[in-house]
Amino acid sequence: MTANRYFSSDPHQRELAARLYAQAATLPLLCPHGHVDPRAFADPDYTFGTPVDLFIIPDHYVFRMLYSQGIPLERLGIPRRDGEPVESDHRKIWQTFADHFHLFRGTPTGIWIGDELRDIFGITEKLTWASAQRIYDQIVERLGTPAFRPRAFYDRFRIETLCTTDAATDPLTHHINIRASGWHGKIRPTFRPDAVVNLDTPNWREHIDALSQVSGIEVHDYRSFIRALENRRAFFKQLGAMATDHAAVTAYTSELSEPEAEPIFQRAFRGEITPDEAARFTGHLLMEMARMSIEDGLVMQLHPGSFRNHNDTLFQHFGADKGADIPLQGEFTRNLRPLLTKYGNDTRLTLILFTLDETTHGRELAPLAGHYPALKLGPPWWFFDSLNGMARYLDQVIETAGLYNTVGFNDDTRAFCSIPARHDLWRRASANWLAGLVTREIIDLDDAVETMYAMAYGLAKSAYKLDNA
Amino acid sequence: MTANRYFSSDPHQRELAARLYAQAATLPLLCPHGHVDPRAFADPDYTFGTPVDLFIIPDHYVFRMLYSQGIPLERLGIPRRDGEPVESDHRKIWQTFADHFHLFRGTPTGIWIGDELRDIFGITEKLTWASAQRIYDQIVERLGTPAFRPRAFYDRFRIETLCTTDAATDPLTHHINIRASGWHGKIRPTFRPDAVVNLDTPNWREHIDALSQVSGIEVHDYRSFIRALENRRAFFKQLGAMATDHAAVTAYTSELSEPEAEPIFQRAFRGEITPDEAARFTGHLLMEMARMSIEDGLVMQLHPGSFRNHNDTLFQHFGADKGADIPLQGEFTRNLRPLLTKYGNDTRLTLILFTLDETTHGRELAPLAGHYPALKLGPPWWFFDSLNGMARYLDQVIETAGLYNTVGFNDDTRAFCSIPARHDLWRRASANWLAGLVTREIIDLDDAVETMYAMAYGLAKSAYKLDNA
Amino acid sequence: MTANRYFSSDPHQRELAARLYAQAATLPLLCPHGHVDPRAFADPDYTFGTPVDLFIIPDHYVFRMLYSQGIPLERLGIPRRDGEPVESDHRKIWQTFADHFHLFRGTPTGIWIGDELRDIFGITEKLTWASAQRIYDQIVERLGTPAFRPRAFYDRFRIETLCTTDAATDPLTHHINIRASGWHGKIRPTFRPDAVVNLDTPNWREHIDALSQVSGIEVHDYRSFIRALENRRAFFKQLGAMATDHAAVTAYTSELSEPEAEPIFQRAFRGEITPDEAARFTGHLLMEMARMSIEDGLVMQLHPGSFRNHNDTLFQHFGADKGADIPLQGEFTRNLRPLLTKYGNDTRLTLILFTLDETTHGRELAPLAGHYPALKLGPPWWFFDSLNGMARYLDQVIETAGLYNTVGFNDDTRAFCSIPARHDLWRRASANWLAGLVTREIIDLDDAVETMYAMAYGLAKSAYKLDNA
Repeated sequence: MTANRYFSSDPHQRELAARLYAQAATLPLLCPHGHVDPRAFADPDYTFGTPVDLFIIPDHYVFRMLYSQGIPLERLGIPRRDGEPVESDHRKIWQTFADHFHLFRGTPTGIWIGDELRDIFGITEKLTWASAQRIYDQIVERLGTPAFRPRAFYDRFRIETLCTTDAATDPLTHHINIRASGWHGKIRPTFRPDAVVNLDTPNWREHIDALSQVSGIEVHDYRSFIRALENRRAFFKQLGAMATDHAAVTAYTSELSEPEAEPIFQRAFRGEITPDEAARFTGHLLMEMARMSIEDGLVMQLHPGSFRNHNDTLFQHFGADKGADIPLQGEFTRNLRPLLTKYGNDTRLTLILFTLDETTHGRELAPLAGHYPALKLGPPWWFFDSLNGMARYLDQVIETAGLYNTVGFNDDTRAFCSIPARHDLWRRASANWLAGLVTREIIDLDDAVETMYAMAYGLAKSAYKLDNA
Repeated sequence: MTANRYFSSDPHQRELAARLYAQAATLPLLCPHGHVDPRAFADPDYTFGTPVDLFIIPDHYVFRMLYSQGIPLERLGIPRRDGEPVESDHRKIWQTFADHFHLFRGTPTGIWIGDELRDIFGITEKLTWASAQRIYDQIVERLGTPAFRPRAFYDRFRIETLCTTDAATDPLTHHINIRASGWHGKIRPTFRPDAVVNLDTPNWREHIDALSQVSGIEVHDYRSFIRALENRRAFFKQLGAMATDHAAVTAYTSELSEPEAEPIFQRAFRGEITPDEAARFTGHLLMEMARMSIEDGLVMQLHPGSFRNHNDTLFQHFGADKGADIPLQGEFTRNLRPLLTKYGNDTRLTLILFTLDETTHGRELAPLAGHYPALKLGPPWWFFDSLNGMARYLDQVIETAGLYNTVGFNDDTRAFCSIPARHDLWRRASANWLAGLVTREIIDLDDAVETMYAMAYGLAKSAYKLDNA
Repeated sequence: MTANRYFSSDPHQRELAARLYAQAATLPLLCPHGHVDPRAFADPDYTFGTPVDLFIIPDHYVFRMLYSQGIPLERLGIPRRDGEPVESDHRKIWQTFADHFHLFRGTPTGIWIGDELRDIFGITEKLTWASAQRIYDQIVERLGTPAFRPRAFYDRFRIETLCTTDAATDPLTHHINIRASGWHGKIRPTFRPDAVVNLDTPNWREHIDALSQVSGIEVHDYRSFIRALENRRAFFKQLGAMATDHAAVTAYTSELSEPEAEPIFQRAFRGEITPDEAARFTGHLLMEMARMSIEDGLVMQLHPGSFRNHNDTLFQHFGADKGADIPLQGEFTRNLRPLLTKYGNDTRLTLILFTLDETTHGRELAPLAGHYPALKLGPPWWFFDSLNGMARYLDQVIETAGLYNTVGFNDDTRAFCSIPARHDLWRRASANWLAGLVTREIIDLDDAVETMYAMAYGLAKSAYKLDNA
């Protein structure tokens, strides 16, 4: 009944899309970039909690939409920083969610949740105010069985590798425990040093102290800071890391000499850093990260352009990651030039770029990726990880960059159960796009079949060096 | 023959679109934002004049296109500021228009005029150089009958509410007269204080004097200025206003303390204001307007980003609103943050945003509206009030913001007779978009039916609080 | 088999597109803007060399894609500035190209090359690693025959006029020789003074010396500089030039008085120019070029927004035009205002604008072109000269600007053999777009037929004044 969902309504394109999709539907999932908590795999008996613990409380895509329509976060069970009580009756929260499920019509969240309820939990009813409690019961029942635990899902979802995202200062205890447990799943850390690299991070000194502690290198100046970072990268690599990940407000890069970097670092150390100095230092550190990636082989990922915690009032009450990170206009051509001129011609480097400003896809990123050997483009990110977002991305990027300068799909999620739905959406969008190329005779069917495999699996495998791992 | 116009050529989507459209086609029209002259309803015997008075002289969409192809505005009967004679033979102007009607192929103006001639005036012939005078005769004949007067059209168009746009200093005489006349039509004013709020408005002091006069409050300092604005809002509300409307070059907002605002106001009073001070004051006043909206319940509308009167030469000869307002790149994430942090979480505020920079739709506006309770997105505005503009808007906004953070349709026109055509276009575009979601199984038909009603009627009704009015 | 390629897969739209296309397919080609080397026509016996000389070495679209995937330019036979040896075995280079031809899937380069091999060289096999040498043989054989020389192609391609692009200092020897040869082909020069007008051009003084020499006017101050430019324009016009062409980093325009311009020119003369002064001077010269165009009737073309030679490392080794020119964000509303306010209302001026920032199409360029009589929009440029680029252009521009403020197609290529494929792509994209308007009843078939002719031929003919030539 929904076998051909999301494909074009044109019968010819639809039929071709279905054929292409069929070849990719059961390929293993590569998850080289995401935010699933490794704790879920460290403990074989880990459970997901209630349906609200699974679908609502950890998913800011869900509760920010409800909040935007005037539902206080307290009513959705989102914990307050001040410890004031919030709604704890999860059946009531689920009812509120179901009462407002129409808000998600036509959104990717609506698609993912629909897919998860149907394909993972076997729910055949539509979620409405009337069916809410029946569906809640069904989910609770399933979640109580061993087949509905993270390690079981890992196999059921056919995940081949799942990368988490971890602070530079993270001791990676869960990763160590997973490895020690002898379980066959491949959970890999990703090195994300934002908190120590961005000198204006709140409580930066505490992060530096933590860095000293985990690295065993007393970080007191620029040189020891760099050594500590190199030390941590090596440690992450030992535990299976394939990549690093970097956020920044802009893509600004520019090299500082050590005599320039040292005093900035010292001012940060004394708590006297200015925003401009912090930005210059971040721009320099991105260059350093590229250098280290050339040396240690870790793939470098950069996703600039999010204004974090835009809603200061909400941030005061509920903290970070509450659906209030808002994109900014982006610029890559001038900002990345220092890094690309120095390292962009080096085939040992793989730099994967993400953007929240779609206008940069066709104008800057595709031309850059279609030229520099080191550069690849990540899939449509965050708000654009959607049917329309994917369609626009493929339309705007591939003609200039070519498909082989892209890296397939990233699910980039903390909602573990949404991973199959997200990959399925990408595979369907890819199949439909390729079918459109074939029906219009832009490529032939043989090429489409080969390309389908690349989009669903092959590109991610090679870009993240998982074929050598 | 044209029953299914503007729908996809795919038969399945087309048939579904037709079914969805059929349910919305005859719903009443809500016109919560527009520029129709209230004078047209104050006098029951008001007539539209000649076909040129109706279709050409007041419609800068029409004459700017002719002008762009080298036809002097004088030849189109557009009055000059210096009083020099312009073409007064309306049959001749109509012929020039018809001779060049091919210029409007594929444009919304071409669609609207075609619809108006066919559906309002019963013209079955195509407008060409050859048919021009016959069609002119037919329109003249119709315009001579009582059924072709504004009040008759109000009923024939099934308008439920029509909001005009009025300066803060407008005495609203026509609105008072309409109410006094006992006519059943609902014509409401909208409070637009740009001329007094933007301190660099030409002849600002005269506008302030007018404000003193209509409010009965002698405006001589910042505090009396604010009181006069509050006074006028109350007066507009009494006469049925549901909303305020604000234009600005940018969406910049930032609060000033009274000790900061007062000297800026005083410098404006002495004619010594700088552009930067004026911009800061406007940014502060937008915050004040949000505060007042929370207090008095008027919906706040903001549409930044138009460079007015770009063609200075033309402005010297013909004045404002001659089709030479050109969009600028927009920015909302940083600019609106002060306002949103302070008032964006308050569910008493409804702030409706419009943009002329479509790149902000997906990047900034949809994420903001999908988070802040106070924020809603207006429909595609001005140049984008078109089939493609609507399709792009729906594709770029809904996945992130959700449909329920949008406000349905605004016709935003001074061309009263184009109102049904404009709503019809929106309803057709909406039906076609929803049909596309259904054929691709993104939503089901039941949801599409409910959503169709919301897009055509329900969202505008609730966003502008017309259900409480 | 590929007769309906690139058309919509919807049968109704496809059939209509095929009908519209059929009427345009055999119209002559107008090539008013391009970079073909006039040398190819000066010598009747000019040959294209090997398949690699024809398809790879001169085409940075091709080799930049291979380079982006890690293939050194040396392996592709691209000459180094230092004269170090590069691959000279053209069969080997061709094999490398064929081995990687999958990189071009879905790109316009892939489409053009496929079309050229099939339609010009009669190759029926698909280019793969296996067929590479057989196809090489076939091309070599064809290139050895008189029918595969530039003048023969000019006729075979049905070219009516082909404009080259030539430096202000170019003596136009080849153009003179072509004229003298009595050949019937119409090869016209285009006046491109960037190297003398942009004061920060490397070796600017040498260009100025060359300008003095070719013009016979000793350029030593601003006034003699302007006279020399006027002199060269007159010379170009004598040799058939219809247009000028201008690149700039931005579209900034602003008039300088002679007392302002003179000292800037003098500082450039002494090698003391600052980037800011150079930008101001370019902005002034664009105004001067508009003035001269009004006087001498040459059409003015402006295409800002490319960051040239972004990859400095590559530039050091291989020089300019190696696929490393990357677009920048654009701005026209404020930048062009001085020029448009002064000259934009003058119907003697035709100013054709191109952009690499598609966001300016709907936001700035279409509203400007839909108002100013002097302004027209060029076709989608460079990276956007593609099926999707054309579709987006038509969707974003025409509703606001109208089709008659655009100028049809430019092939803008140095790859002479790709010209028919490029025009064919535009004609197919136009036919498909028009068919979509007809199937959705936005325009009728009669109008579509007339418009098809305009898009394929008529608009370029009149915009570049080729009907008077």
